[in-house]
Amino acid sequence: MTLHTNPAVAAVDWGTSHFRIWLLDANGTVLAERRSAEGLLSVPPQGFAGILETHLAELQAPPSLPVVICGMAGSRQGWVEAPYASTPVALDAVQAGAVGVASTARKIRIVPGIAQHQPDAPDVMRGEETQLAGIAALASGNHLVCMPGTHSKWVEMRDGTVTGFCTWLTGELFSLLSSQSILRHSVIGAEHVSPDAAPFHKACAEALAQGGDIGAQLFRIRAAGLLAGLSPDDSAATLSGLLIGAEIASATRRFAAGDKMPVTLVGSAALAPLYRAALELAGHEVRIADGDAAVRAGLFAAARHLDMVESKDRATA
Amino acid sequence: MTLHTNPAVAAVDWGTSHFRIWLLDANGTVLAERRSAEGLLSVPPQGFAGILETHLAELQAPPSLPVVICGMAGSRQGWVEAPYASTPVALDAVQAGAVGVASTARKIRIVPGIAQHQPDAPDVMRGEETQLAGIAALASGNHLVCMPGTHSKWVEMRDGTVTGFCTWLTGELFSLLSSQSILRHSVIGAEHVSPDAAPFHKACAEALAQGGDIGAQLFRIRAAGLLAGLSPDDSAATLSGLLIGAEIASATRRFAAGDKMPVTLVGSAALAPLYRAALELAGHEVRIADGDAAVRAGLFAAARHLDMVESKDRATA
Repeated sequence: MTLHTNPAVAAVDWGTSHFRIWLLDANGTVLAERRSAEGLLSVPPQGFAGILETHLAELQAPPSLPVVICGMAGSRQGWVEAPYASTPVALDAVQAGAVGVASTARKIRIVPGIAQHQPDAPDVMRGEETQLAGIAALASGNHLVCMPGTHSKWVEMRDGTVTGFCTWLTGELFSLLSSQSILRHSVIGAEHVSPDAAPFHKACAEALAQGGDIGAQLFRIRAAGLLAGLSPDDSAATLSGLLIGAEIASATRRFAAGDKMPVTLVGSAALAPLYRAALELAGHEVRIADGDAAVRAGLFAAARHLDMVESKDRATA
Repeated sequence: MTLHTNPAVAAVDWGTSHFRIWLLDANGTVLAERRSAEGLLSVPPQGFAGILETHLAELQAPPSLPVVICGMAGSRQGWVEAPYASTPVALDAVQAGAVGVASTARKIRIVPGIAQHQPDAPDVMRGEETQLAGIAALASGNHLVCMPGTHSKWVEMRDGTVTGFCTWLTGELFSLLSSQSILRHSVIGAEHVSPDAAPFHKACAEALAQGGDIGAQLFRIRAAGLLAGLSPDDSAATLSGLLIGAEIASATRRFAAGDKMPVTLVGSAALAPLYRAALELAGHEVRIADGDAAVRAGLFAAARHLDMVESKDRATA
């Protein structure tokens, strides 16, 4: 069990529907990890400490091991509220605002999210700020970061400072439209959407050409099924292409400087290929960042900023 | 029971979720009516004749009374399929394509819907063609007809001919987003949206200014609830304004000639005031048509085209 003998910190990404924990050494290298579905939605009141300690015990983490957490555990409905930092804000300053958990003997810090208090463009994030810190730690300069998901976020970062961001409901709309709306009849039975599918590209191009207004295109999926026998796979690819294309058209318009900044895509295995294809179709230069690696790097950076990791050389002992 | 002694025809609007029947005299005047929730979705196989005859019996309609039907009863999943007419098509020609029901002694005709077989803009309607015929019977010339609902339709009519149409999922999106998405937390408990609500107007104006691309505006409803305490009523008004404004922006762009044609709004009591306010905000000249009166007039026009009504003067006897 030598791998577990010298962890420096436990890093936790505690979201709405997932819990992930990594034991990291003093260099940020992963020694062990666990994942579960114990997200915010499934944690009973006063249940946070118990869940965390159970995972730490399974990983044979010592009682003195500090823990750094990001995500919904810091929301008002979470364990301890970590009040939002406000844009524009340096990611270092966000991490410096981490709050402690007073009710445990263990040293625990929860990283806050970021709020954008613009009256005409209010927005919030929790968890993504830590992925952004991880990306900033891996690459400097100015980025436009595209973070696809249930609620996709686009973030403008300038030298480690978040200057603005915006959220699209793309993933949630795909889920609702394909399972609950009239379009479910067209999409039912569809397989995974391929980034190479011609209907995906065609729909992306159409959404881009329409400047993100896809209102007139959605019902056509149903009509094409009735009139021309459009298959479930092609229907799903069309719906996905319309929604992703619309997000990119809308985000590109909002972040006008985006034309000049490369887009860093922080994607899951399922979404990254679709977004990459759509971003390239829209003429963006795309860099890929691994979402898991980014959140781990961000949590480790937070642990160092918060003096939770004592020495960089200890892990080599 | 003198009112019921001289009906000339029974007119039925048989939709996905509703059944409405009127007894009309030879002038098209309403003698009696019934409504129920026995729409297509709740009719068992081979159940159409029984439901229709039960309502006719309650209305004391004679066995010889002919019946004209529009709506989903003519779909593939309905009673007898009435194959779509294709755009561009005169509404007279649509009605002439009504199909008979062979399995009953009573004379019954079902009016077909209209399909738009354009590869880049496929669309279908069933039921609205009969409202359009009713509007055409009430007013000649060129119209842009806005038919709000679960699936809103905009129709370009030129001298009684449907030259093109397009469908938006506006009502369904409002329902899904306000009850199933992250926005439900913001909208829960909201009352009826008022067409006078300032947030409704503001959101409409924003959707119009964005050319129908409201992707970046939806999540802001949630964020404004978290950051600024946006109330459920104002959240619902904002969501409604964004969706209706986006539909109008999108439709206005699609039907370029719409700038020159007045918009005839065929609305329900709940939706017509919201659409009227939004259309006027967008600079359209708006005429209001009553949806029930339009479908009755359309069904009566079909009955006359199909020689189901024998004489115009009989009802005065």
